Amino acid sequence: MKKVDLKQKVVSENETLAQANRARFADGGTLVLNLVSSPGSGKTSLIEETAERISGAYGMLVLTGDLVTENDARRVRRHGVEAIQICTGDACHLDARMVRDHLLGSKAKHYDLVVIENVGNLVCPATFDLGEDLKVLLVSVAEGDDKPLKYPPMVRASGVLVISKTDLVPYTDSDPDRLAGNALRINPNLAVFKLSSKTGEGLDQWIGWLESRLAAKRQSRARG
Amino acid sequence: MKKVDLKQKVVSENETLAQANRARFADGGTLVLNLVSSPGSGKTSLIEETAERISGAYGMLVLTGDLVTENDARRVRRHGVEAIQICTGDACHLDARMVRDHLLGSKAKHYDLVVIENVGNLVCPATFDLGEDLKVLLVSVAEGDDKPLKYPPMVRASGVLVISKTDLVPYTDSDPDRLAGNALRINPNLAVFKLSSKTGEGLDQWIGWLESRLAAKRQSRARG
Repeated sequence: MKKVDLKQKVVSENETLAQANRARFADGGTLVLNLVSSPGSGKTSLIEETAERISGAYGMLVLTGDLVTENDARRVRRHGVEAIQICTGDACHLDARMVRDHLLGSKAKHYDLVVIENVGNLVCPATFDLGEDLKVLLVSVAEGDDKPLKYPPMVRASGVLVISKTDLVPYTDSDPDRLAGNALRINPNLAVFKLSSKTGEGLDQWIGWLESRLAAKRQSRARG
Repeated sequence: MKKVDLKQKVVSENETLAQANRARFADGGTLVLNLVSSPGSGKTSLIEETAERISGAYGMLVLTGDLVTENDARRVRRHGVEAIQICTGDACHLDARMVRDHLLGSKAKHYDLVVIENVGNLVCPATFDLGEDLKVLLVSVAEGDDKPLKYPPMVRASGVLVISKTDLVPYTDSDPDRLAGNALRINPNLAVFKLSSKTGEGLDQWIGWLESRLAAKRQSRARG
């Protein structure tokens, strides 16, 4: 009982901080995406391809979460985009405080887009709101089409499903439509993209969607 | 501070239960493996192939951990092996109490081999001893060769590394030797296997190693 209470307390404290983050992001008209997935589903690769295509026209910042190493931030910076690495130590997810401390405290600069790459973990990040507009869930075709059924809290918490590494479809038993169907059974409101950061297949649709979201934010900022 | 203390308390209570599990497994001369990995690295497939090759000669029981669904236990049972599904709800890892309650309380039957398939999660299960002889860490070649560097606690906690889905090597940027090297830099004592449950490549080495461990347990039981 006590354990459950404490978990609720941690989650509820996080929620308060997340709402404060969300308000500050909204004030700035910044679109914030929280990328979540298993380790190795291709979050960093998708961010790299997105940076190549978006960062000329939009101010973009990337926050990358890992237990240790600067590797992901270094990969992203090669594409001319600012990136901050958050090392969580033994924490299995980012939380709203980490995002606030690494981001909102640091500078007043405006960003159109902040992409947060969470720790690779299909369970715990579902519970911790960071103040993002949307969670973007990646599942690679190499992981098996049943994964949405086995990790439903994350599917429910997400607004977008990216089925990644579609270049591997011919070499696996995956049927991306079946994978998508399994996710949509749990959350019918998901926007679904199928893409390969390696071959570029499907990236235009993803970028098109992202640009429409960025344009909507810009409009709301102009009105505000 | 309080949060850290509570986590330590939970881990230390788990450790006490794990030692009790370990003592009971040792009394029975049972070899216990705790399979850990990201979601979709092929734990269930490896268990299925292992069951096909081992269960004629050795009494085998499988415990499969998932947030929800009986799917994995059902897959394993098709190979004529007993399987118990542990649904963890929102818990991101198995713990020693779940193993005790589902296994040790139930029957006095002897098993030579108990394989525990943990929740797909490369972070949290590293901290929770279940009373196993060894953690067997799976990393699929589709996840990227850098994964051991990014999740070092799990690499340190494991005794065996299985590099899985080697059939996908020609279609990815993976070099399994580099992946193994990254893991061995963190834990030089790892036994490393490279295999594909799909093509059967490398399974003989894995089964050979497992049989030698089972034979050693049998000998120690005969002496005891």
